[in-house]
Amino acid sequence: MSFKRKLQLATDFYQLSMGNVYFLENKADQIAVFDLFIRKNPCDNGYTIVAGLEQIIEYIEKLHFDDEDIAMLKKHHPEFQPDFLEYLRNFSFSGEIYGMPEGTLAFPNEPIIRVKAPLLEAQLIETTMLTIINHQSLIATKACRIVKAANGDGVLDFGLRRAHGSEAGLYGARAAIIGGCIGTSNVETEALFGLPSKGTMAHSLIQSFDSELEAFRTYGKHSPNNLILLVDTYNTLESGVPNAIKVFTELREQNKLNGIYGIRLDSGDLAYLSKQSRKMLDEAGFEDAIISASSDLDEYLIRDLKLQGANITLWGVGTKLITSYDCPALGAVYKISQIQENNQIKPKIKISNDAIKITNPGYKKVLRFYDKDNDMALADLITLDHEEIDPDKPLVIFDPIYTWKKRVLTNFYYKELLVPIFIDGKRVYESPNILEIQQKVKKEKKRFWPEYHRLLNPHIYHVDLSEELWKLKQDLIHQER
Amino acid sequence: MSFKRKLQLATDFYQLSMGNVYFLENKADQIAVFDLFIRKNPCDNGYTIVAGLEQIIEYIEKLHFDDEDIAMLKKHHPEFQPDFLEYLRNFSFSGEIYGMPEGTLAFPNEPIIRVKAPLLEAQLIETTMLTIINHQSLIATKACRIVKAANGDGVLDFGLRRAHGSEAGLYGARAAIIGGCIGTSNVETEALFGLPSKGTMAHSLIQSFDSELEAFRTYGKHSPNNLILLVDTYNTLESGVPNAIKVFTELREQNKLNGIYGIRLDSGDLAYLSKQSRKMLDEAGFEDAIISASSDLDEYLIRDLKLQGANITLWGVGTKLITSYDCPALGAVYKISQIQENNQIKPKIKISNDAIKITNPGYKKVLRFYDKDNDMALADLITLDHEEIDPDKPLVIFDPIYTWKKRVLTNFYYKELLVPIFIDGKRVYESPNILEIQQKVKKEKKRFWPEYHRLLNPHIYHVDLSEELWKLKQDLIHQER
Repeated sequence: MSFKRKLQLATDFYQLSMGNVYFLENKADQIAVFDLFIRKNPCDNGYTIVAGLEQIIEYIEKLHFDDEDIAMLKKHHPEFQPDFLEYLRNFSFSGEIYGMPEGTLAFPNEPIIRVKAPLLEAQLIETTMLTIINHQSLIATKACRIVKAANGDGVLDFGLRRAHGSEAGLYGARAAIIGGCIGTSNVETEALFGLPSKGTMAHSLIQSFDSELEAFRTYGKHSPNNLILLVDTYNTLESGVPNAIKVFTELREQNKLNGIYGIRLDSGDLAYLSKQSRKMLDEAGFEDAIISASSDLDEYLIRDLKLQGANITLWGVGTKLITSYDCPALGAVYKISQIQENNQIKPKIKISNDAIKITNPGYKKVLRFYDKDNDMALADLITLDHEEIDPDKPLVIFDPIYTWKKRVLTNFYYKELLVPIFIDGKRVYESPNILEIQQKVKKEKKRFWPEYHRLLNPHIYHVDLSEELWKLKQDLIHQER
Repeated sequence: MSFKRKLQLATDFYQLSMGNVYFLENKADQIAVFDLFIRKNPCDNGYTIVAGLEQIIEYIEKLHFDDEDIAMLKKHHPEFQPDFLEYLRNFSFSGEIYGMPEGTLAFPNEPIIRVKAPLLEAQLIETTMLTIINHQSLIATKACRIVKAANGDGVLDFGLRRAHGSEAGLYGARAAIIGGCIGTSNVETEALFGLPSKGTMAHSLIQSFDSELEAFRTYGKHSPNNLILLVDTYNTLESGVPNAIKVFTELREQNKLNGIYGIRLDSGDLAYLSKQSRKMLDEAGFEDAIISASSDLDEYLIRDLKLQGANITLWGVGTKLITSYDCPALGAVYKISQIQENNQIKPKIKISNDAIKITNPGYKKVLRFYDKDNDMALADLITLDHEEIDPDKPLVIFDPIYTWKKRVLTNFYYKELLVPIFIDGKRVYESPNILEIQQKVKKEKKRFWPEYHRLLNPHIYHVDLSEELWKLKQDLIHQER
């Protein structure tokens, strides 16, 4: 695009308008703590796959305002004083950020990112971080659901044309791979991941020839090692599959059928057509021909097709994955939890009539407890940062709303989920590559019981508050009301 | 982002893989015609607001592959011959593109964009054009629905943090303005539109002070001309509104309340809270205080709140607008309709068991007929490009599927909806600015009867095929079957 992307301005105006007030009131440098967290898992999934941290790191590292930005803000917002604009011109992030590594399974109310920084800095980065995390974590979680439904079959991202612009296609593809997709049709990702993009042909290729057979034969000549023929341009079972078999036969006779080959179904009843196609291919001796499908697929349709014995082993998923069609937004929020004024530390809370919307105050960490015997996740605990847990003593945890619901953990170990990303404005974290993140997701998922992975109505994983944090919260609620 | 955006690669791999075959088979230069069209309006709206053409023009004008791209394709795709890679290295678009200007009301099956170009070129630009049009037309149409529900009140886009990445937020905001929103919170749009972004404060500002009153008072000191106070941090009616009234009173006494001022409701029951707030503000003599609201709004909730007499005149809409939450994808497709081989012109069709999915062949145009007496739209007609209509003779049009449904148009004039954008690879079209496009939408909407604007189950506007086109289509169907 000729319009140069400037992420420093990819923010809501109120961040600047509040920044102006903080600056003029000498509040800019008060040290504040903000938590970025979700209130609800996307698609009613049992958890959320965290994704987007790498792009947040890039954003924070490059965050500054150039002369052009300053001139534009000055022009449009006469209320901004020269001193504030000068502050922006010299802006760089100087604070601390902790975050959950990408691929972590996160749950509602857990800080996914925790920022401790001068108030103005911490405020200014809100929107961009939310935009990135909300988008990528949504698509990664949706991909994870679709991959689960495919139950071992490969799932490819074919969604670019239905994405919310090409950048959504690009980072959506990234998130899809993190969530478990084995590839994407999106060529732009090759520079980002270093992995080849996937695909073969559209109907237009076939229509550009005088016949389907000529089109298949020609394609086979030039791409015999990746020969997935699209068989539904005219008539799948009467024309497409027989023509594909002809071409496979010719290539086999010439000893040229040595790579990946098969067909793609893109319309019609995929259960019926795949079973018939499988039969025809097998009878012609092409037992190893792949049958792939793409046609408005999502986790529910894939699951149902598989239940009906559809003979499909490779799924190209477009619209429903790249937009997370039935739940197209994740609602992560970013809330202040503490502010420091003249060395006085003030924990902060946002009150609401809706208990779930009351925030957790203070400077917190998240611990995940595992069973020592089988390494399975037991529960998460949000505690204040200074709290220490003795893994050799039984630990009583309780539901933060229904406090009579108690559980005693024994024989456990735990890990801290938030790791340092920036310290004093310097990056201290190196992002793993995308396949490492994909592996992390696979590995972490295995440490949660199957009940948490159910597509519908999954078991709710326990995320409790430490007693000290719970008491702090209650005290603040009573102060405010 | 450190990752430089390259739209030439924002495409599906199969475009390149088909390009390779076209190139090697000497088909690259066959002149092909492709149509970009929708099959269904988004959100069951009565029409689709076309948006995105300006970004398509930027894309096509800059479309080339640099050395880095070629090296990457070579590395990942050994099947690509050096000659084909050399072709790509020298690529630029040399063909013709016609399109509907942004802000046009388009209907299913009408070419929104028509490309006539060497086959390989026309093929290569498919995905990126679809991604842009699908995204922006979707959001423009959704915005148009929300603006309709607001029935004259202002609607602001507040969606960036829930957009599918920051680019989706940016072009989503653009589309929202085209669809009728009066502004956006997205600062990045200032460079794109030249319009100031909007907004005032989040809860964090209020929480960063020791009291709500202190926060309001301080904000008012620095921004008295744009003073929309967020009143729901602690308790809307018992704390937020009374504190806002205190600050308004103080400012009025100091003669400083001269700009836009009022409150924003962001939670709770907006009908009840707005009525109570209005009463309190009016009783304190602030009859011109604005009451704005934001809280998971969409066209249905706004309509219902207004039906219940909510005293809100400014609506901040986020998630549901920027993601088009209940219909988050538009399914425009791009289909070949003609190919030229050795001066022989071959119209092309894609057959399907589903009648609506059978494409319209040939090199076509779209005419919109208006009533001479009242300038209201009568119907659209898709014809072959060479067909001429005599506006002085009655015109019989008929439904292309239920052909017995006939209508005679008299006393009409018409305009062609497709205008030249590129001729011989050169841009011949200048995009209007965004406010001109917004005005075009407003003006065009007035020329469609209210029945077409209904949010639910709108009247279906007639889009017919000329008799010549219809016959061509029938001939091709019978040939193929």
